[in-house]
Amino acid sequence: MTAPGSGTAAAAPCPLCDGLGGLLVARQPLWRVVRVDDAVTVAQHPAFWRLIWNTHVAEFTDLPRAERIACMDAVAMVERTVRHQLKPTKINVASLGNVVPHLHWHVVARFANDAHFPQPVWASPQRPADPMAVQALQRRLSDVDEALREALA
Amino acid sequence: MTAPGSGTAAAAPCPLCDGLGGLLVARQPLWRVVRVDDAVTVAQHPAFWRLIWNTHVAEFTDLPRAERIACMDAVAMVERTVRHQLKPTKINVASLGNVVPHLHWHVVARFANDAHFPQPVWASPQRPADPMAVQALQRRLSDVDEALREALA
Repeated sequence: MTAPGSGTAAAAPCPLCDGLGGLLVARQPLWRVVRVDDAVTVAQHPAFWRLIWNTHVAEFTDLPRAERIACMDAVAMVERTVRHQLKPTKINVASLGNVVPHLHWHVVARFANDAHFPQPVWASPQRPADPMAVQALQRRLSDVDEALREALA
Repeated sequence: MTAPGSGTAAAAPCPLCDGLGGLLVARQPLWRVVRVDDAVTVAQHPAFWRLIWNTHVAEFTDLPRAERIACMDAVAMVERTVRHQLKPTKINVASLGNVVPHLHWHVVARFANDAHFPQPVWASPQRPADPMAVQALQRRLSDVDEALREALA
């Protein structure tokens, strides 16, 4: 199977083998970085990227050490670039994969006034999303993507 | 200040500089591993460890690369040991720190029948925790801690 993720076909259909998983920002042989573009995320936490491992492995420790290092070097570069560009209150990084067990790292810029802060983005909202703040952030995203593209080239 | 975490004193009081942050499992100069022992976690997701960086830094990318690698080598060793010992459905790994901005990585063994699966442990529960399953898991924890202690020595 030649999938957009260039991944090995999994036993079950895998959306990260069969699709890119978001708006493609950068791509290297081992991984790709996408910006999350589902409607709920965009409306609440638009500064949300994922580093997706191209081949289908479920867990971080399914990778040999050299690939784990390459993976986290790239995650760190995403984090560093997003911090530099957006000066968030905090960065959240997570590899969960309970729904889609194909290794991917969420990198989310969090702000003290966002809908869930200080709770994780997966928790119950703490307040309504502020449309002005969200829109201001959305206007920055193409610049951040461009900075990520350069940093990850 | 000589704190249990051996951390540099932060401007604001930091519970991970001032305390261990859980049941101490293993300790090295750069980091320590604790098992989370708050009542809610123990009752729902008892197989929950944290790797806590000993010095006070907020973000993963506040570390130089060699320390990031050492950090993730240790996180990977926790993950690998927990996988081997408990055969969970999935491992969840996350560095959030919105409430306590002192670098720590959550490593959680998730099971298909746990209270939140397949949602993150921070989301709304999907079902009540199964007391029998939780108790069976709790009985395994001292063995897992011992395996972690050996693996992280």
